Parts: sequence; structure tokens; C-alpha cells
Amino acid sequence: MSPPSSATAAAGGGGGGSGRRCELRKDAVFGRWVIFSPARARRPSDFKSSAPVTTTSPNTRNASNGGGSTAHPPPSCPFCIGREHDCAPEIFRFPAGASEWRLRVIENLYPALRREEEPPASDPEDEGRGGGEKRFIQGYGFHDVVIETPYHDVHLSDLSSTETAEILLAYKERFLQLAALGNIKYIQVFKNHGASAGASMSHSHSQIIGLPVVPPTVSSRLRSMMESYGGTGKCGLCEAWSEDIIIHQSQYFSSIAPVAASYPFEIWVVPRDHLSHFHEIDREKAVDFGGILTEMLRRLSQQLNDPPFNFMIHTSPLGLAATSLPYAHWFLQIIPQLSGVGGFELGSGCYINPVFPEDAAKLLREVNLS
Amino acid sequence: MSPPSSATAAAGGGGGGSGRRCELRKDAVFGRWVIFSPARARRPSDFKSSAPVTTTSPNTRNASNGGGSTAHPPPSCPFCIGREHDCAPEIFRFPAGASEWRLRVIENLYPALRREEEPPASDPEDEGRGGGEKRFIQGYGFHDVVIETPYHDVHLSDLSSTETAEILLAYKERFLQLAALGNIKYIQVFKNHGASAGASMSHSHSQIIGLPVVPPTVSSRLRSMMESYGGTGKCGLCEAWSEDIIIHQSQYFSSIAPVAASYPFEIWVVPRDHLSHFHEIDREKAVDFGGILTEMLRRLSQQLNDPPFNFMIHTSPLGLAATSLPYAHWFLQIIPQLSGVGGFELGSGCYINPVFPEDAAKLLREVNLS
Ligand SMILES: Nc1ncnc2c1ncn2[C@@H]1O[C@H](COP(=O)(O)OP(=O)(O)O[C@H]2O[C@H](CO)[C@@H](O)[C@H](O)[C@H]2O)[C@@H](O)[C@H]1O
Ligand SMILES: Nc1ncnc2c1ncn2[C@@H]1O[C@H](COP(=O)(O)OP(=O)(O)O[C@H]2O[C@H](CO)[C@@H](O)[C@H](O)[C@H]2O)[C@@H](O)[C@H]1O
Repeated sequence: MSPPSSATAAAGGGGGGSGRRCELRKDAVFGRWVIFSPARARRPSDFKSSAPVTTTSPNTRNASNGGGSTAHPPPSCPFCIGREHDCAPEIFRFPAGASEWRLRVIENLYPALRREEEPPASDPEDEGRGGGEKRFIQGYGFHDVVIETPYHDVHLSDLSSTETAEILLAYKERFLQLAALGNIKYIQVFKNHGASAGASMSHSHSQIIGLPVVPPTVSSRLRSMMESYGGTGKCGLCEAWSEDIIIHQSQYFSSIAPVAASYPFEIWVVPRDHLSHFHEIDREKAVDFGGILTEMLRRLSQQLNDPPFNFMIHTSPLGLAATSLPYAHWFLQIIPQLSGVGGFELGSGCYINPVFPEDAAKLLREVNLS
Repeated sequence: MSPPSSATAAAGGGGGGSGRRCELRKDAVFGRWVIFSPARARRPSDFKSSAPVTTTSPNTRNASNGGGSTAHPPPSCPFCIGREHDCAPEIFRFPAGASEWRLRVIENLYPALRREEEPPASDPEDEGRGGGEKRFIQGYGFHDVVIETPYHDVHLSDLSSTETAEILLAYKERFLQLAALGNIKYIQVFKNHGASAGASMSHSHSQIIGLPVVPPTVSSRLRSMMESYGGTGKCGLCEAWSEDIIIHQSQYFSSIAPVAASYPFEIWVVPRDHLSHFHEIDREKAVDFGGILTEMLRRLSQQLNDPPFNFMIHTSPLGLAATSLPYAHWFLQIIPQLSGVGGFELGSGCYINPVFPEDAAKLLREVNLS
């Protein structure tokens, strides 16, 4: 998994060439140490590059085709318009009831968790501390797919702010539905784009998993934010960002290269107001968020030659009110997958990043999108 | 990153075909939830498979070649015997001083951390809790490469127990050297085999990183082991393993498919005695450990068609005596890299594993190595 050459060049230019020294930085949100090492960007590889970019052709949205099929869909993409019968059941679509839909939320045909299972009778983490704690529970939960566009060759970064806002509002809708059930503890929204980012399907989509437990990274993130809030009385995501890590600011959101980014060219899109839960978002903010999100994806795509990437929404557990989480602040994290990780990261949970965030932010600010 | 076909077959046969149901299991060592979902093994992909196996040819160790070069080394592999001048400085070799060396420990030419930096004056985690905690420190530390064999086409799994024991004793030697400095908090030993496991060099090697901080996964592992020990008074790695997850037992070690494995075909090699620190190992145990380790690598290679893999030694921080860590038990974790992870794992820290450990253990026990 070698980085695409433009990424290496950027890393070399931004990190290795800037005369910076090795440094460890601890992230206040995830509470983890990251090693910044410009020298790492220059190491050679004797493996052939297995180009991690997507196999889809460039955007050729075919507006003249009223049937909604695209220029070159693979013969059997179940996410394309007209192939709805090849999918697991639909949950809802926008516009509701329209055969010319813009977006569909469907069940995942190969779900990680099953809505048909029995929900856990009581909180598995609470059943007596230590040995009493439950270590096996049935695989109850929800696993949905959001088909972001009817057209096979359209990427998320091709969509307008309003179109992207609809995707974000579909997430919100699903949050509200799952929250109402009372037995889902956390909802993980994520997107895989490109095979090296884990995607098995190339048609633009994201996923929503509703879990009966609070996942480990969420607990440790909240603990870490609480500790740093307790120490300073300030939220690490509200602070006045230093100019050199800001990439862009819109009316309601800031996009930054986080000061202790685990991955080269990692971006966080953070609401400027201190808000604990993603699903409080309204339409006006969703349009603003949609605009800054696709702007960031376009900048990454231009700078790094359409890299595979993941994004994740980091929100707060359901059933915990904002007032009980004074330190919590939701955000979206974008990780371009340029080089993969190795045994060091798997073993220690520390990351090695050859590109300083200040250098990544500068390069991303300077991208010419015209 | 599609799994090699034999892995898919194994997953389908072992997980999907066994009529098992979706289940969540919490691992007592890492304290994290894993989702077991046999259905996931059957999902299709419209990305072409980017075969993640190594590019090196099969073992062609050329015993007749006294010069020590191999059948087809790439023209410029600095880890091959005779190319010592292309490497960063040597720390030691076995046998000491021999030009016909069997193993070399060298400095990493592109180090993540630098031995020349100033060590942190005080413990960065201790500088007053909360806001006072240090978040930026200089990149002091050690980053070594262990060249496991002089020959380019020899894999670790080709080595004898005694040869492998030398590698383990080289790790130990380096542990003792770094521990003596007094300012290294934790040592992460790891191996990357194959490009999809992160390796940039194909010549068999592993790495040793000495860190000035205790990494996050280590702290949370120790916390989780302490909690489960406190609850039951028993160490989760000493318990009598259930037959169905044991793969092999030697005089001093057990190899198991851990009951809440995060990855398909993940293996742990665990000392049968309750020991907190890897570097207490002696030569007799190292030979036994070397035997079971290479045995496991051969079984994985046979079952999954030479998959890329990582291994990591999970030990205890330096400078903490075993008596202050009654719950700690070191082990080695082997992760075959069959499918990569996606946004769900990156965001939540939960893993989705389509193969139940009981099924993986059965398949690995049944491998015919003759
Ligand atoms: N002539 C020479 N002399 C001395 N050393 C030399 C050398 N030429 C190369 N090296 C070093 O040899 C090492 C080979 O290591 P690996 O192939 O295991 O993976 P690497 O560390 O590159 O990265 C993988 O592992 C790390 C740690 O897990 C991840 O950060 C990363 O993403 C992943 O690709 C490199 O670290 C390189 O710096
Ligand atoms: N006809 C159909 N109807 C409905 N749904 C259909 C369908 N055909 C396929 N699907 C589903 O569509 C989803 C497509 O998802 P992605 O391409 O983002 O990655 P996937 O979830 O496969 O795995 C990646 O993401 C997960 C979660 O991060 C990781 O566990 C994994 O290793 C990584 O490869 C799959 O989950 C699949 O089950």
C-alpha cells in the first residue's frame, strides 16, 4: 500500500523538506500520542505500488438519460437507480415515494448486527462490575446503507451543498428513529471510499451502524475530553484555532488539520458552536456543513489524486443529555488512506505521521479548485 | 483489499456455513467489543482484488552459495548479506563479530524517533493532571530493525526453533539495553510481513521501537486486565482454555484463537506461566517459543495462502516491577491481514469479524504441514 506519488511528493515537500524535527504530540480529544517524523516520508519500498485509487471512471453523470442509468455502471450494481429489487429492504428515500429518488436508506444485505435479534435485557456493561460484567451478548443492532446518489459515476464530492445536506439530514432522520427505540446506545456513521479504505462497493454510499453498547473509542474519547475540560474549563474543540492549522471556515463550521493528527492530511470538520450530538443539526446548518464537507473532499482529491478515504462522525451516546456531557463536542473526521498502518500502530495505538498538520493545512488551503 | 480466495472459502466454510448467529463478545484483555457476523463473509465486491501477498518468490535458500547471496534478491536490498554498508549503523549481530552473520540489529535509517534528541526531563503524563499535562515533547526514542536472516528469500516461517530463538533473544538483549537507560517507558516489538501489512521492505525483518511514553493501547490493556483480575481474582490469560480455541500447546506456551478475536484467524501465543514482562525469557523458553511461533506462521501460510500479517509483542512497561503488576501477562499477537478495516473500526474501535475463533482454531489445527 504505497501512497500515490502525489501524496509522497506532498509529504516530502510539506514534511520532510521543511526542516522540522521529530516530535510527539498528544491529542486532547482521543487522548493518544502521535509521533511526527518527517524522515519517515523518505523511506524506500521494494514492493510494487498497489494503486489504492478507485476503479470508477471520472464523473460522467449523464443528465440526458431520464432513466437515471449512468455512463458505465457495472452490469450488476444494486445501488444504481432501476436496480432497487436487488437490494435489501428500503427504510426511506428522498423524496418520499418518488421513483426518481435522489437518495435511499436501505438495510445492509450482509449486516454486522441484526434487528431481528433480542435486544440485551439490561446494560451489558452494568451487570455488576468486574467478573459479573457480561462478555457475550446477542448480535442485536442496526446496519443500514445510505445510497448517496442514484448514479454510479457520481462521487460525494461532485454533489452540491444542498444535495450533500440531504445525506446529512438522512443520517439525522435515522438517528431520531433509532434513538426512539431506547435500546441503541451509540450510532456510528461512516463512509468508505475506495478499495484501500475498505470499500467493497464503488457506488457512492455511506453506512449507519446502531450499537447496543458504547464502543471503546467513544468511551475513551469522552473520558479524554472530560479530563482536558476538567483541567482547563475549556473544550479542546471550541478553542480559538491557531491560524496555521485552519483550512477553511464557514458560517457554522471550521475545518482544520488537527494539531496531533494521526494520519497525513487528516481533516476535522467541527461545528463552531459547542454541541454534543450530531443529530441536533437543522437544515440551514446541514447545507453549510454539506458545503464545507464537499469542499474538503474536493481539496483532498485535487491535492492527493483522488485518494481512498474514510470519514466518521464522532458524536455522543444516545440517551445522554447534553447537560450531562458539558465537555462533549461532535465533529467529523476525514482520513485519506495513503499508506496503511503496520504492527507498531496495531500494537501500541500510537501513530506515526510523516506530515506535520501545519504543512498539510497550508497545502490544502493553497489547492486551486477552479 | 479483498481476502485471498482461500481465506474467503475458509471464512465461508468455517463461519458462514456453520449456522452460527451474530454475537458480540467483549475481550477481557483489550476491553473491547467485537462483532461476530458470519453473514459478512458472503458480501460481494465490485473492486478488483489487489492480491495482498508478498512479492518474494518461495523459499530458495541457496545453501551451496557460500557468499550468502540468494537466488533472486532485488538489485539493491540493503538487508542482504554483503550490503551492510547500505544500512544505518549496526547495534549488534549474532554471532558477534562474524562476517557470516545470522542476524543483525541495526538502527532504522528513517527513524520515527531519534536517539539524538533530548529525553523528556520529567514524565510527560505526570506534569500536573488535566491542563498541566504536557502535550508536546521532543521526538526522543529508539527505532531499530532486526534483520532476521542474511538471505533475501528466507521467511521467518522457514527458520528452525533455534534460529527463531536467536531473534527473540536479540529482542531481549535490546530490551535490557534500553531498560538500562532509565528514560524509555515502553518497548514495542512488531513485524510487518507483506505490503498489505504495511511492510515497505520484503527482506524478512522486524522492528523495535523504544518510546518515552506509555502508549494508549498499553495503558488501556493494563487497565482492562486489572479490572477483570480485580473482579475474578484470576488472570484472563492463565485460565484453563476451552478446548475449542486451543490450536497447539508446547512445554511453555499455548497458542489460541482468542475468544473475542478482532481479526479473522488472529492467533495469540501465550506463556503458560503468569509472567508480566517478555524480556524475562531465557534461552530454553525462547527455543520453545520460537518453535510454536514458526509453527503458527506455517499453519497460517498453508491455510490462507501466505497472507500478509503483523505480529506484536504485548508486554508491560519498563520500570514497573512484576510485583506491582499482579494482573499483567505478556503475549504475542499474530494478525493475518485479509481484508483491511473501514470507517466503522476507525471510528468506533469495535471490530467486525466474520470468522468465529472456534472455527478458525479448528481449521488451523487441521492444517496438514507435512
Ligand atoms: N538501508 C536501511 N537501513 C536501515 N533501515 C532501513 C533501510 N532502508 C529501509 N529501512 C527501514 O526498514 C524498515 C522496514 O520496515 P517495514 O517494511 O516493516 O515497514 P515500515 O516501517 O516501512 O512501515 C510500516 O510500519 C510502520 C510502523 O508500523 C507504519 O507506520 C507504516 O505505515 C507501515 O507502512 C522501514 O522502517 C525503513 O525505514
Ligand atoms: N444488494 C445489497 N443490498 C444492501 N446492501 C448491500 C448489497 N450489496 C452489498 N451491500 C452492502 O453494502 C456495503 C458496502 O459497504 P462498503 O463498500 O463501505 O464496505 P464494507 O461494509 O463491505 O466493508 C468495509 O467496511 C467495514 C466496516 O468498516 C469493515 O468491517 C470491512 O473490513 C471493510 O471492508 C457492504 O456492507 C455490503 O454488505
